[in-house]
Amino acid sequence: MIILSGRDLIEVLRAEIAVNAVKEAFKLYSERRILQPPRVVLDIKGNWWGIMPSSTDKSFVAKIVSVIEENKNRGLPSVQGFVVLMSPDTGETLAIMDGSILTAIRTSAASILSTEISINSRNIGNLGVIGAGTEAYYHVKLSLEYFKIQKLFITARKNHIELARKFGAEATDLETLLKNSDVVFATTSSITPVVLGKYLKDDFHVSSIGAHTPNAREVDDDTILKIRSYIVDSMEAVANETGDYIIPKQRGMLNNKLVAEIGEIINKNIKIERPSLFKTVGIAAEDNVTAYIAYQEAIKRGIGTNVSI
Amino acid sequence: MIILSGRDLIEVLRAEIAVNAVKEAFKLYSERRILQPPRVVLDIKGNWWGIMPSSTDKSFVAKIVSVIEENKNRGLPSVQGFVVLMSPDTGETLAIMDGSILTAIRTSAASILSTEISINSRNIGNLGVIGAGTEAYYHVKLSLEYFKIQKLFITARKNHIELARKFGAEATDLETLLKNSDVVFATTSSITPVVLGKYLKDDFHVSSIGAHTPNAREVDDDTILKIRSYIVDSMEAVANETGDYIIPKQRGMLNNKLVAEIGEIINKNIKIERPSLFKTVGIAAEDNVTAYIAYQEAIKRGIGTNVSI
Repeated sequence: MIILSGRDLIEVLRAEIAVNAVKEAFKLYSERRILQPPRVVLDIKGNWWGIMPSSTDKSFVAKIVSVIEENKNRGLPSVQGFVVLMSPDTGETLAIMDGSILTAIRTSAASILSTEISINSRNIGNLGVIGAGTEAYYHVKLSLEYFKIQKLFITARKNHIELARKFGAEATDLETLLKNSDVVFATTSSITPVVLGKYLKDDFHVSSIGAHTPNAREVDDDTILKIRSYIVDSMEAVANETGDYIIPKQRGMLNNKLVAEIGEIINKNIKIERPSLFKTVGIAAEDNVTAYIAYQEAIKRGIGTNVSI
Repeated sequence: MIILSGRDLIEVLRAEIAVNAVKEAFKLYSERRILQPPRVVLDIKGNWWGIMPSSTDKSFVAKIVSVIEENKNRGLPSVQGFVVLMSPDTGETLAIMDGSILTAIRTSAASILSTEISINSRNIGNLGVIGAGTEAYYHVKLSLEYFKIQKLFITARKNHIELARKFGAEATDLETLLKNSDVVFATTSSITPVVLGKYLKDDFHVSSIGAHTPNAREVDDDTILKIRSYIVDSMEAVANETGDYIIPKQRGMLNNKLVAEIGEIINKNIKIERPSLFKTVGIAAEDNVTAYIAYQEAIKRGIGTNVSI
């Protein structure tokens, strides 16, 4: 068994590898070739805990995540995550790994994949990232590795100046970012829209990873009205979990648009017309394949800590 | 975070400690002071996989178990188990440990606890153990540590001679064992009864840990007719999972007997009259408290492997 720390995961999951991993995950998911039962959600001491198992032909993975806001006062990350990878053939534990970094990397890789599919090139013009937390950090990091970017803008309520400095990006206000970006990644915990359609360029692609309850919005109606393609990670997941899909759908705003799962788009080679939106709430398939690929890479490169249990 | 191997668990979970752990677990369970959602059961490549989360004030535990018969041809244990212990306050991972050995030890401790409650002494006369697998091994090992035993008998379809030799016990046939034992532990995977009431002494206590489907029996009707006390780990669990409870209950054979959860018996100090039967299918509470106590002991004694994730 090997242990992969957050640092190990950053080392093995280069952008190219991570993007290929989520691509494979979405393909498997849309072909229904992954067993992904409903996640178990628990309320423990008032905090949200989730247990997400999944299995492919090659890998059984369970992710356990908790969201504990009081951790901020303890100097600990508010999102704690743990992933275990087992052989679906023998049941042996192959690896355990940091679940928070794995999640951030696979989510960033999904945003990147959606962008490449929409723009059909790695030369994506100007990129704007909204948010300055862990997810924003990995979105920027992997994008710089994967894409040719002209200008990189970052905005947030706080910490965006520090984040921009780290990556040589331009810290700016929301309006400037939206007006000047060809691609926008929204990585906020806001429950009201931060992606405002009135400011967006004509040909935009947006990836929105926030808004995780039926009433929460990260993307406004103006944006929805403008888009021609609405890409999702899982039709079932977005229809249950995010106001960014549920509310426009109820209002009939998605008629006459292409609405499809990213895995189906890849499998059937469907052409995406911009403006486009990718809405992702995250699915276990991404964790599964990314964890398995990380494990394989780590073994190949001798990364990680060997332990026996 | 620490890793506790099977060997580490054997080292820290002495019989006294393990019995106290399950005692605490059953008390918490019967007081409904443990969060124990329904387990997730998966069919992966035709094999049974279960995920069992639970949480107390002090400990979040998830156990992942698979039962893979083909492992026997691979020289691997057919039951694979993995346990992760987290802080319910911060979500941090405190320990991961071998789930198979933890399960065997807590199950043995539960049988021992039921025996002590029934006999009201550690001087238990003759003990008979049916079965020669992992569970039988730990039942014998912990019983020798915990009880004063006059004669120890072991029987099984195979391997009982080797097991008896290891512990200086007497390998015998089923009839001899049942006729001569004051206490019987049934640890088989049989789906037809091995505990046959017609052979049993007048004053017996039986702990039966097998028969895990609604039609399976490890204990026959003659035994059920003789007992005055029918002790269970969880009323809900035995009523769903084992023919040893479901069938006698349907036939009205449990009327006029004391039928109670072991935790309730402890909490309310209920007197047990023999002959008595303890029927256990295993509950997450036992894993939870035993894992937490193992962790505490290991920290105290410097046992286990420290790793960071």
